[in-house]
Amino acid sequence: MKVFKTQLTAARIVEMTGGRFNGNDDIQISRIADVAEADINSVIFIESEKYISRIAGPEIGLIVTTAEFENVLTGHNLLIVEKPYHTILQIADHLISSDETVMEWTVDCSALIDPSVSLPEEVYIGANVVIGKNTRIGNHCIIAANSYIAEDCILDEHTRIYPNVTIYSGTRIGKRVRIHAGCVISADGFGYLLINGVQRKIPQIGNVIIHDDVEIGANSCIDRATIGSTIIGQDTKIDNLVQIGHNCIIGQHCILCAQVGLAGSTVLGDYVYLAGQVGVAGHLTISDRVMVGAQSGVTHDLSADGKFFGSPAREANRMKRIMAIENNLPDMYHAFRRLIKEDKESQ
Amino acid sequence: MKVFKTQLTAARIVEMTGGRFNGNDDIQISRIADVAEADINSVIFIESEKYISRIAGPEIGLIVTTAEFENVLTGHNLLIVEKPYHTILQIADHLISSDETVMEWTVDCSALIDPSVSLPEEVYIGANVVIGKNTRIGNHCIIAANSYIAEDCILDEHTRIYPNVTIYSGTRIGKRVRIHAGCVISADGFGYLLINGVQRKIPQIGNVIIHDDVEIGANSCIDRATIGSTIIGQDTKIDNLVQIGHNCIIGQHCILCAQVGLAGSTVLGDYVYLAGQVGVAGHLTISDRVMVGAQSGVTHDLSADGKFFGSPAREANRMKRIMAIENNLPDMYHAFRRLIKEDKESQ
Amino acid sequence: MKVFKTQLTAARIVEMTGGRFNGNDDIQISRIADVAEADINSVIFIESEKYISRIAGPEIGLIVTTAEFENVLTGHNLLIVEKPYHTILQIADHLISSDETVMEWTVDCSALIDPSVSLPEEVYIGANVVIGKNTRIGNHCIIAANSYIAEDCILDEHTRIYPNVTIYSGTRIGKRVRIHAGCVISADGFGYLLINGVQRKIPQIGNVIIHDDVEIGANSCIDRATIGSTIIGQDTKIDNLVQIGHNCIIGQHCILCAQVGLAGSTVLGDYVYLAGQVGVAGHLTISDRVMVGAQSGVTHDLSADGKFFGSPAREANRMKRIMAIENNLPDMYHAFRRLIKEDKESQ
Repeated sequence: MKVFKTQLTAARIVEMTGGRFNGNDDIQISRIADVAEADINSVIFIESEKYISRIAGPEIGLIVTTAEFENVLTGHNLLIVEKPYHTILQIADHLISSDETVMEWTVDCSALIDPSVSLPEEVYIGANVVIGKNTRIGNHCIIAANSYIAEDCILDEHTRIYPNVTIYSGTRIGKRVRIHAGCVISADGFGYLLINGVQRKIPQIGNVIIHDDVEIGANSCIDRATIGSTIIGQDTKIDNLVQIGHNCIIGQHCILCAQVGLAGSTVLGDYVYLAGQVGVAGHLTISDRVMVGAQSGVTHDLSADGKFFGSPAREANRMKRIMAIENNLPDMYHAFRRLIKEDKESQ
Repeated sequence: MKVFKTQLTAARIVEMTGGRFNGNDDIQISRIADVAEADINSVIFIESEKYISRIAGPEIGLIVTTAEFENVLTGHNLLIVEKPYHTILQIADHLISSDETVMEWTVDCSALIDPSVSLPEEVYIGANVVIGKNTRIGNHCIIAANSYIAEDCILDEHTRIYPNVTIYSGTRIGKRVRIHAGCVISADGFGYLLINGVQRKIPQIGNVIIHDDVEIGANSCIDRATIGSTIIGQDTKIDNLVQIGHNCIIGQHCILCAQVGLAGSTVLGDYVYLAGQVGVAGHLTISDRVMVGAQSGVTHDLSADGKFFGSPAREANRMKRIMAIENNLPDMYHAFRRLIKEDKESQ
Repeated sequence: MKVFKTQLTAARIVEMTGGRFNGNDDIQISRIADVAEADINSVIFIESEKYISRIAGPEIGLIVTTAEFENVLTGHNLLIVEKPYHTILQIADHLISSDETVMEWTVDCSALIDPSVSLPEEVYIGANVVIGKNTRIGNHCIIAANSYIAEDCILDEHTRIYPNVTIYSGTRIGKRVRIHAGCVISADGFGYLLINGVQRKIPQIGNVIIHDDVEIGANSCIDRATIGSTIIGQDTKIDNLVQIGHNCIIGQHCILCAQVGLAGSTVLGDYVYLAGQVGVAGHLTISDRVMVGAQSGVTHDLSADGKFFGSPAREANRMKRIMAIENNLPDMYHAFRRLIKEDKESQ
């Protein structure tokens, strides 16, 4: 359970979120807790009856709930709202951004920054960070410990690089981007030509461009373009262990869940949703708002607004029917064998 | 082939493992080798005839084998036991733990440890390790080079962190846990709400709890809970490149093979076995001792002691029948078309 | 877009690649660009009409194209060849190797190298690199920042390790090998025996051998052998996020695409091609030149020169027929139900 540096009184929370308060409004809140672990400095939320019995003790800072549970929870400090979960998110956002405001901007003395790099005043560079020649780091960037950023990169303002990230040369990263630990950005695309029995490497001399507000999960890999750029569109969110091949172009506001893999040169529209472990072949076009179910294998272009799943991925309703019949195949086969037998006997 | 610092005489090995010895018991053993690479300081084991012809030369330290092969191997130093492989494991365990005993407890001068951290006397902290504020490190822990442990973490005794691991804040790790290189523990869970066309991040303010005797393979990711904890139960073993989503609760003694992916809030019982590349959807319950075959896609709860496979995963015997029929579909289709044709002709 | 340190005049390029030149041969080329981003120092190639309209402006250093497009592109500096893409690769190779020649061989003062390691004169060791006892580094090796190489390893000449790589002890790596960022080589194989309800670890005391000219993509994992060696054959290319289990033996010139997973002790011949997300069970043999389609699950041995796909993987032509029928199952089922009904009515 995270303990925030910032503390909020219940009174301040009510002022911020609205809702009806009942209890002691001096209470100091610095934790957002699960019901079972809550203490006197915690806020929890209750939206369902089953969580009430799990409340650990009487000493809870604040319970955000609906009018429905007000009577069952008497004696607690209560904040009555319509959507407790949304109120909790609001409180969390406030605590997180307050904590970031109290952050100390500093450059660790163990960081190895090329003399050509001019750092802005408000920046955090952690221990053992290495930054190469001519790379530009925007204001309010956070580069955590043991990360490596090669030469000729650009990181725009408010971008955060977690520990042990590797960013190869020439990468361009927008504002408010978050790249989680262990990611590798702009490693070589995977391309070889078999010439005289030898796998000859195709030089990979493009780069990667990541637009504003992108978040990339831990240990994901985005390969540089062979020529040109691999592009991740604004506000797209990528989960852990995802592979984006060279020259892919991903639209805006997409969601790519964990372990998704995109082969090279595939183009995704905006608001595309790929569930976990989906694979997409190379040189395809996936249109806006397409949704693809988990573990699907996409082998051809998919058109706008459709839902697809399966390997190979088919239109969802058709695939559901196919799967229902597959599930029924033993019975069908049995009946079929009987038919064949009857047919033979009747001849 | 690993060369151990510890050396054991054949006499000492026999004393330790039991069995019947025949040969020169002064031989010094410091390697456990494959038959083809064995030398005078190596122990090998022979359980099957086909390996005998692969023996590289006459100069092998010790051969652990069964009575069955005693005559074929005369002239070698032989240790005759019932289960040679088990005896080899016993020797290996002894060599490994002896080597660990001779380990030098030391804190590398390049490590950057927050002043609030009080280290126990017997601990190994490698080069460039970074440890954040208020983190507690237990006795006999090994934190290898270039790893990063954020603030407010707890690592209990005898836990080993391999190089280039990243552990985000608030993580609690038990005793004798091993986390292999490149793992990322407690990165943010993957959660967004699409509000007014923008992917709004759901704050991720829970943590990860890893119980005693867990081992986690290289480059795996275990996400922190949104609220509450993602939990890995005691003695569970996780292979490389595995993804565990936020708020998952994994039981004890489970085996999760390489590239398995669990979406958020899924609960696994004890002794669950997930083979390689299995995907499990979110908010499911997998009961004790369930086994799931490789590449399966689990889309609904699975009940105790069952075996399942396929995508979507079905009960194993049913799935085997379905797959046999699928394999037979071309013939079935052919016969079916003939039936239809006859049917039409007869009308 | 990568800017090379090396500059080539158009005249020098023509001398090197052959072809017919038309234009100003003093032009200095230091970039290989996508058509849309090309400038006066860029070379681009045009092999298809659709790219002509995308040319950003008139100021392009050099266009490599075929005689077919010569007239449409008058006014530009043109190099007319038969295979423009191959010519571009030739230019790229030249620029890349020239740039590497101007590399400064140096050992960063923050690198922590065990005193037992004797470095050759021409070597690049980046910031915060850690190299363990008795490891041998060949001439012209590049070990990039924040990588960790444990004790008793061998890296032969011209091998390149990218940042944040972890190489466990005893690993042997050949000449001209490239290991991209975040890879973990020789972590423990995944093996446990369930004894009295506890997952007992099988000691992993073998190693990994990587032969000459291998390239390994970002965040991939190659586990050490239990006993003996996990082996990657000469000139084999491995993409990102690939898992190679303990004791696998991979042949020469193989291609393993992203997110492939091989369980333990599997043997691949030469020129084997595994597409993305393929899983291969343990203890199998895949013969020379076998090709396996994306997301396939290989559950039994595959014989030479065959093409296979599906999960479980079947011979490609058979699998195509099965999939075509699966796709047709709803219609087939409908017709089948009618037959059954007729059959019942006729009885």
